[in-house]
Amino acid sequence: MAVLYGVSVGPGDYELLTLKAVRILSETDIIAVPRTKSENTMALSIIKKVIDLSDKEILWIDFPMTKDKAVCAENYKKIGKGLESILDTGRDIAFITIGDVSIFSTFSYIARYCSDDGYDVRLIPGVPSFLAVSAQLNKPLALGKESFIVMSGNSDNFEELLKTDTNKVIMKSKDCIDRLKRELDGKAVSGIENCGLETERIYHSLEEAEECGYFTTLICRGDT
Amino acid sequence: MAVLYGVSVGPGDYELLTLKAVRILSETDIIAVPRTKSENTMALSIIKKVIDLSDKEILWIDFPMTKDKAVCAENYKKIGKGLESILDTGRDIAFITIGDVSIFSTFSYIARYCSDDGYDVRLIPGVPSFLAVSAQLNKPLALGKESFIVMSGNSDNFEELLKTDTNKVIMKSKDCIDRLKRELDGKAVSGIENCGLETERIYHSLEEAEECGYFTTLICRGDT
Repeated sequence: MAVLYGVSVGPGDYELLTLKAVRILSETDIIAVPRTKSENTMALSIIKKVIDLSDKEILWIDFPMTKDKAVCAENYKKIGKGLESILDTGRDIAFITIGDVSIFSTFSYIARYCSDDGYDVRLIPGVPSFLAVSAQLNKPLALGKESFIVMSGNSDNFEELLKTDTNKVIMKSKDCIDRLKRELDGKAVSGIENCGLETERIYHSLEEAEECGYFTTLICRGDT
Repeated sequence: MAVLYGVSVGPGDYELLTLKAVRILSETDIIAVPRTKSENTMALSIIKKVIDLSDKEILWIDFPMTKDKAVCAENYKKIGKGLESILDTGRDIAFITIGDVSIFSTFSYIARYCSDDGYDVRLIPGVPSFLAVSAQLNKPLALGKESFIVMSGNSDNFEELLKTDTNKVIMKSKDCIDRLKRELDGKAVSGIENCGLETERIYHSLEEAEECGYFTTLICRGDT
């Protein structure tokens, strides 16, 4: 049976691809590439630096820019069915996804759809952006008896989660800086936008991050 | 100035090493390998499958099996000073650490010590065990407006954290199964011990995990 791979390609630096991701992308003829209307194809630009794409078939996967759940669900179904029709011909597909495939990845919905239909779906874990950020800032996320929470600017119970007595990672921080200022008053926050890319920017405080872009990840440790 | 690298080597499967980890380990002559009294040198056994160690100098780093903070601090200082004396001769060192270097890694203390002393410390992020577990179980950690918490059986506020309305990752679950049963009563929990290794075991419930070993990571999603 053909395999649908969900391949994590890491946060931006192509050297953070795993050996397994490189092997599977090298061995698989069809690469499925998510694309939004703004032509955001970062995952493709990461693998381009390592994988020879000249003989690959690129399968563009379009996601509508909407939060309407019914529209999204219909689209996931359409995408899933399209992938399944290719798998039915015996050809493997590698679906690339930035960061790690288990964290805020739309591929999770496609994986579930095809998996529920009985197809062989295999997920390849990778380096999530927040670990590249914590490494570069030299800010460990958990020491000894500590714990950490990973949330986004869109998370349910945003304020409540920020009150939790843990270290915190806030992904997609763009539209929540004001709320973070209120809730994390006085606590040290730092972070990185587009970590590992040429457009990378480092922020040493929430004030500095006020005009940050979409791929900004902030870290707040309890002890600093 | 010579560089002290903290190199994440992933959870166990050597293919989850990143290209960057492989490059740095290949280029660096001295590999620092953490070792406990029980001779747990998993990190070394992972890189052995990819890196030719015949020309490398292995620097064994011994950690005492104690929770006494003063003894640990004294040991970190001793290790830090030892590494610094090598860096002073102009030779780089790659200190390997399983999983990711920012999560429950004793190297964080060494990194801080040498960094505070003005040495060039660079952390290379990697794949943490919990992402290998979530990928293999096909259990996403965060979808849409969700968030997740990463804790261990030793975490402060263990019970309180489990009550948080998030998805949960519980690392080093060995000695907290009974407490998890009490707090997560009725919720679906699954996990993997020694993920990616030959000794890997999958658990589909807390009951199954009762006799689990040290490197067991459990996942509890709110919706299942």
